[in-house]
Amino acid sequence: MEPVLAHSVRLDGDAVHVLDRRVFPFERTWVRCETVEEVAKAIEDMVTQSSGPYFAALYGMVLAARTLSDKPFAEAREELARAGALLENTRRTNNALRKAVALVLETVDTAGTVEAAAEGARIGDERYRERSRRLGEYTAELLPDDGCVLTHCWADLYLTETVSAAQRNGKRLRFVCTETRPYLQGARLTAETLAEMGVETTLITDGMGAAVLQSGVVDALVTAADRVTMDGHVVNKVGTLGLAVAAHAFGVPFYAQVQAPDLGASTKEDVPIEYRDGAEVLSTLGRPTASQRVRGLYPAFDVTPPRFVTRIVTDRGVLAPDRLTDYHRGEER
Amino acid sequence: MEPVLAHSVRLDGDAVHVLDRRVFPFERTWVRCETVEEVAKAIEDMVTQSSGPYFAALYGMVLAARTLSDKPFAEAREELARAGALLENTRRTNNALRKAVALVLETVDTAGTVEAAAEGARIGDERYRERSRRLGEYTAELLPDDGCVLTHCWADLYLTETVSAAQRNGKRLRFVCTETRPYLQGARLTAETLAEMGVETTLITDGMGAAVLQSGVVDALVTAADRVTMDGHVVNKVGTLGLAVAAHAFGVPFYAQVQAPDLGASTKEDVPIEYRDGAEVLSTLGRPTASQRVRGLYPAFDVTPPRFVTRIVTDRGVLAPDRLTDYHRGEER
Repeated sequence: MEPVLAHSVRLDGDAVHVLDRRVFPFERTWVRCETVEEVAKAIEDMVTQSSGPYFAALYGMVLAARTLSDKPFAEAREELARAGALLENTRRTNNALRKAVALVLETVDTAGTVEAAAEGARIGDERYRERSRRLGEYTAELLPDDGCVLTHCWADLYLTETVSAAQRNGKRLRFVCTETRPYLQGARLTAETLAEMGVETTLITDGMGAAVLQSGVVDALVTAADRVTMDGHVVNKVGTLGLAVAAHAFGVPFYAQVQAPDLGASTKEDVPIEYRDGAEVLSTLGRPTASQRVRGLYPAFDVTPPRFVTRIVTDRGVLAPDRLTDYHRGEER
Repeated sequence: MEPVLAHSVRLDGDAVHVLDRRVFPFERTWVRCETVEEVAKAIEDMVTQSSGPYFAALYGMVLAARTLSDKPFAEAREELARAGALLENTRRTNNALRKAVALVLETVDTAGTVEAAAEGARIGDERYRERSRRLGEYTAELLPDDGCVLTHCWADLYLTETVSAAQRNGKRLRFVCTETRPYLQGARLTAETLAEMGVETTLITDGMGAAVLQSGVVDALVTAADRVTMDGHVVNKVGTLGLAVAAHAFGVPFYAQVQAPDLGASTKEDVPIEYRDGAEVLSTLGRPTASQRVRGLYPAFDVTPPRFVTRIVTDRGVLAPDRLTDYHRGEER
């Protein structure tokens, strides 16, 4: 069964509909955006996250283009670029927004009409899903026919495509997922999505991963990576490092998923770590859960050194963390 | 300053007053118990935990004894033993309850009058605090004059005595503490108590420990241990293992505190791990925080092998995890 989060940004009629991940799965609320400005606001307000902003930006560009079809191309192209800048500026560290906007503008430029924005969005949507599907297939090949996977946070389409590929191949996978404080992406998004896909799923708190890895029930630790440096450092949601170190200590392989290693980051010093407001650690779903007399610390990501990483799974195959230049080899020739 | 949790079970006038740790620090509510039955109910309802039930049992015995002073000794002694059994049965795996009851009964037997229960309770109270004080002093000696300690869950008097000893010695310690899901003992009890003691304290979620240890800001990981086996396995609140493995990977020492290693447990197979109701993982402070379509898993403790433990700190000094028989050597002669 297709889980709702696999298609949670939809262009439908005259609006983009965005599933509100902030309240999922307690409520299944869709935010309706009729203009590119409303799409930008939804991204800025974190209605969607992970791959969601990429799809929202693609379809936000389509909404903008529809309002420009009566104008001369040069003028329409200029206004469309301004709409793109508006989308990009909602979350400045998110490379996916820039990629979505650039792809739509390129398609428009090639066609010589802003109406081609719809075609650009379709290409961007399909390309992202296709790359995730290949990555999911490579990941599923690494997993046993009957086994248990530990995952952390929310790997989005990488997760759903891995599960789909395993199901197509007749593999029986069980999952353990961490709740992923402070925003509970594991407890809310991952747990609910795996349940929707019919996967036997067990939820643990973030402190229980090492005990579960030590117990011998887990065959592999699998997480997405926000970025992977060319020398094999895995940058992902904070908590990944602790699980990777424990997996290494107890002989469980760690597979990190990324469409491609980042040519722009040769090593970890090239990746600034985002620190979010420490106050976010002092509450859960908006309700205080801690002493308010201390400060919270919230590094959003951590960096796992290559010695704790077994393999990097990309859309072009499975690579050792010290062989990531192989990914781009075909392009260089 | 003495934090409220250092004296959170008090015999005052005609009642035992128990600080309700379930709502601390959001509310500072004291549960008033006028009878041993009310004390037993408070323990059973988890109004207090950690060292709290020990003190509650001591003073519950005093309340029981007060109702028996008109009776012949043999009859009074029998009824007092029944009150002790009532207290012991509230939390069957808690050894401290049995110790508290036995100590009061011994004192009564020696004196030949149930009125000696008050003296027994006083001895038990002082002895527990004195042993914790010595353990705290040994721990403080291991810590730098100006440094940062990472701790997990709630180490109760071991924590407050460590901080007090460091403060007496003019040491400036900062603390990082984990929130400790699902019951948030770190976020509620540890964080608030350290703030009360004037210690600069930073709260993190349970998944952030490895990143903080990797960053180089932490000088030592210090936790209590519920039990330490004679071959150096540390049994403590789930989450300790992951922090210990990460501390080891990044060269940070791990000191585990216990009054005495457990002569009744030669190795980890002698310590059954309590699994609590998995549903407790699916909510926070009573409110759902996870998909309700998955099951939760809640191992209450984990077991850290001695290779990840730097030292065991006891009330008789600091021991290597492979030299714990030294603790009881004096007794054997």
